[in-house]
Amino acid sequence: MAKLVGNAVVGQSGGPTCVINQSLVGVIEEAKKRKEIRKLLGARHGVKGILKESFIDLFKEPKAGLEKVAQTPSSALGSVRMKPGREDCLKIFEIFRKLDVRYFFYIGGNDSAETVYIINQMAAEAKYQMRVFHVPKTIDNDLKVTDHCPGFGSAAKFVAAAFMGDNLDNRSLPGVKVNIVMGRHAGFLTAASILARQFPDDGPHLVYVPEAVFSDEQFMADVRAVYDKYGRCVIAASEGVHYADGKAVAERLAESAERDSHGNVQLSGSGALGDYLAEMVKRAYQGQKIRVRADTFGYLQRSFPGFYSEVDAREARLVGREAVKAATKGDVDGSIAIKRVSNKPYRATTFVTPLETVAKETTRLPMKYLSEQGNNIKDSFRDYVAPLVGKLPVSARLQGW
Amino acid sequence: MAKLVGNAVVGQSGGPTCVINQSLVGVIEEAKKRKEIRKLLGARHGVKGILKESFIDLFKEPKAGLEKVAQTPSSALGSVRMKPGREDCLKIFEIFRKLDVRYFFYIGGNDSAETVYIINQMAAEAKYQMRVFHVPKTIDNDLKVTDHCPGFGSAAKFVAAAFMGDNLDNRSLPGVKVNIVMGRHAGFLTAASILARQFPDDGPHLVYVPEAVFSDEQFMADVRAVYDKYGRCVIAASEGVHYADGKAVAERLAESAERDSHGNVQLSGSGALGDYLAEMVKRAYQGQKIRVRADTFGYLQRSFPGFYSEVDAREARLVGREAVKAATKGDVDGSIAIKRVSNKPYRATTFVTPLETVAKETTRLPMKYLSEQGNNIKDSFRDYVAPLVGKLPVSARLQGW
Repeated sequence: MAKLVGNAVVGQSGGPTCVINQSLVGVIEEAKKRKEIRKLLGARHGVKGILKESFIDLFKEPKAGLEKVAQTPSSALGSVRMKPGREDCLKIFEIFRKLDVRYFFYIGGNDSAETVYIINQMAAEAKYQMRVFHVPKTIDNDLKVTDHCPGFGSAAKFVAAAFMGDNLDNRSLPGVKVNIVMGRHAGFLTAASILARQFPDDGPHLVYVPEAVFSDEQFMADVRAVYDKYGRCVIAASEGVHYADGKAVAERLAESAERDSHGNVQLSGSGALGDYLAEMVKRAYQGQKIRVRADTFGYLQRSFPGFYSEVDAREARLVGREAVKAATKGDVDGSIAIKRVSNKPYRATTFVTPLETVAKETTRLPMKYLSEQGNNIKDSFRDYVAPLVGKLPVSARLQGW
Repeated sequence: MAKLVGNAVVGQSGGPTCVINQSLVGVIEEAKKRKEIRKLLGARHGVKGILKESFIDLFKEPKAGLEKVAQTPSSALGSVRMKPGREDCLKIFEIFRKLDVRYFFYIGGNDSAETVYIINQMAAEAKYQMRVFHVPKTIDNDLKVTDHCPGFGSAAKFVAAAFMGDNLDNRSLPGVKVNIVMGRHAGFLTAASILARQFPDDGPHLVYVPEAVFSDEQFMADVRAVYDKYGRCVIAASEGVHYADGKAVAERLAESAERDSHGNVQLSGSGALGDYLAEMVKRAYQGQKIRVRADTFGYLQRSFPGFYSEVDAREARLVGREAVKAATKGDVDGSIAIKRVSNKPYRATTFVTPLETVAKETTRLPMKYLSEQGNNIKDSFRDYVAPLVGKLPVSARLQGW
C-alpha cells in the first residue's frame, strides 16, 4: 500500500493536565521524523481553532523551546470545552480536505475520542484517505481500555502531597479538616489521597468517592468515630459525592440555594460542598471547642507546575509519539492505550485500541478498592496508584513523638 | 560572668509553615554543642505542652532523622493557637523554675514573642537567671524589625507557582478566575503572586491586598477593563480585603449569612469570598458565555511538602541556631531578625532585636508597592520578594503563539 502523504493537525481539548504538553511535544517530535507528514499544524483551542482555521506551524518551533513547553502544565495550544455536533464535524472534515490534512491527532478525554471517531467516519464515507488518532489525557483517569490515563499520575501526586502536608498540619493543630478533591464521576483522584498515609494514625482517615453512596448521617458517625480515636480527623471527599437517590450533594446544595434566591452568594460556588460538610461537623460538635475547616483543592490539582510525576511525564510523551508512529505505519485509526506489564518494577507498554472502545463511555474506580462501608479506600489501591505517582516528598516525625 | 547552666525548652506556636522544623532542628543542633544546655525539652503543642509538662527529650533524636524532620512541613512538636494570659505565664515560669529551665526558645509569630517577653519579665522580677528567645516564623511576613520572616519565602513560592499554573490554565481555557490567598491583614503573600508574570499578558492581572480599600464597583470596572483587553482575567485577592469602612468583605458576607439564618450553608465558609467575587462577575456578564471560577488556596499555602524555597529553608535553620548562640553567649534576650545585606547576589545576616520591638505590633505591605488605584502590585516588589522565593518552575510558551 502506498504511503499516505500530506499535512497533519494536532489539537488539545478539555481540562488541561500537568503533562498534556508532553503528549503534544511527543506528537511534534515524532511527526518531524516522518516523511509522510509535510506540515504539522497546531490548532489553537482544539476544534474551535480548526473551525476558524487558526493554526500555527509546529515544525518551526525550536527543539530547546519544545523541551520547556513539554514541562509546562496546561495546553500550550489552548484548549476548548466543546463537543462538536455532526455539522461542525462535517465542517472540520471539509477544512481538512481543503488543506490536504491526512493526519489528525486529538489530545483529550473520551469526548475528544468521539470527535475524532465521527470525523473518521466522515472521511471513510467520503472515501478520503485519512488517519485519525486520539491521544489520551485526563486527570480523572476515567478512560476505558487503558490501564490508566496520562495526566492522572501527576494530579494524583499533587493530591497525595497535599494530603501529606494537610495531615501534618492537622496533627500539629488538631481538629476536623475536610478537603474536596476533583472528580465528578470517578473517584480515582480522591482515592490517591491514601498515599499520604505513612503511620497508622495518618490521614486521610475517611475517603468519600462518587462510587459509594453518601449520607449525612453516616458521614457524621464516621467523623465521630475517627475523632474519638485520634482527637482529629482528615477527610477526603470527591466533588461528585452523591446521595442514595443519585443526586450529587453539591447539586442538592445548588438547588436549595436557588430556592433561597434572595441571598447574594451562590451556594453552588467552589467551596460550597466543603463548607457544607464542615458546617455539619461544627453543628454536631456545637459548644465544644473543635477546629473545623474545609479546603477545596480546585484547579491547582491539574495545573500546579514543577510537581509532575516522572512516570506520567514519560508516558504522556510516549502516547503522543506512539500515535504518530501508528498512524503513519498503516491503515489504522484509534486511541493509544497503556498496558501495565509489571508492577514491581513498574513497566508498561502501549497499544492501539479502536476509537469506539473509548469514545462512548467512561470508567469508574473499581468497587474492590472501596471499604465495606464505602467511607474509605483499601490499601490494595496503593499497588495500582503508587507506581504512577512515583516519589513523594519527605515527611518525617520526631522519634520521641 | 559565670555561664548559665541548666535545661532548655523549645516550642512551636501558631500556624505552621513549610520550614518551621528547620528552625526547630537549628535549635536542636546548636543546643547539642553547648555545654550550658544539659537537656533540651521539646514542648508538645507549645505553651499548652509546657503547662501540662508534656515534653520530649530532643537530644535523643538521631541526627539522620532530624534532617528529615527539618524538610517536613508543619510543626513537628505540635503547635497551639493560644496566647497565654499572665496567670498562665506565671504557671509556665514556675514549671521552668522547678525543672531548672534556664533557656526558652519559642518559634512563632508576634504573639509568641509577647509570650516570651512576659515570661522574661517574670524571671527578671523573681531574679531567676534565664535567657528567652523568640525564633521568628510566619507566612504572613508581618513581623516588625526583620527584613522578612522565615516561612514567608516558601509560602510565596507556592503562591507564585500556583498563579503560574493557573495563569496557564486560564490562557488555555479563557475566562475570569478569582484566587483567594491567605493574609488577613498583610498583603505580602498575595503580592508574591506577581512573580507568576513572565509575559505582558500574564496573570495575575489584578491584585487586591488588605492594605488597599476594596470596592465592588471598582472591582467590576477593573475586571471589565482587563477582560476587554485580554479576553481573560486572573485575579489575586487576599482573604482580608476590606471595604472603605474597614470591614472585611468576608466578614460582611458572614454577617449577611447570619441574617439569612434559615439557610443550611454558612456563607462565611472557606470559599465564600471567592464565590462572592465570582458571582459578581457572573452577574455582570449575564447572558454572555463567560467562564467564571474561584479557588481558595487554603492550607496548602503553608503545608504543601517538597516545594519549599531553598533560601527560606536555610534562613529558617539559621535563626534557630542563632537564637541558641545568642542566648548562650551572654545576658541577652530577644528575637532573631534578618537583615538583607545585598540583593544581587542576595546575602543576608541576622541580629538580635529586643523582644518588645516585635511583640506588640505587626507590619504591613509598604504602600510604595501598591499601584495608584490599589488594584495591583508594582514590579518593584519583585526585587524584594524574588530572592526569598528562589527558582520557580519552568513555564514556556510555543514560539508561534
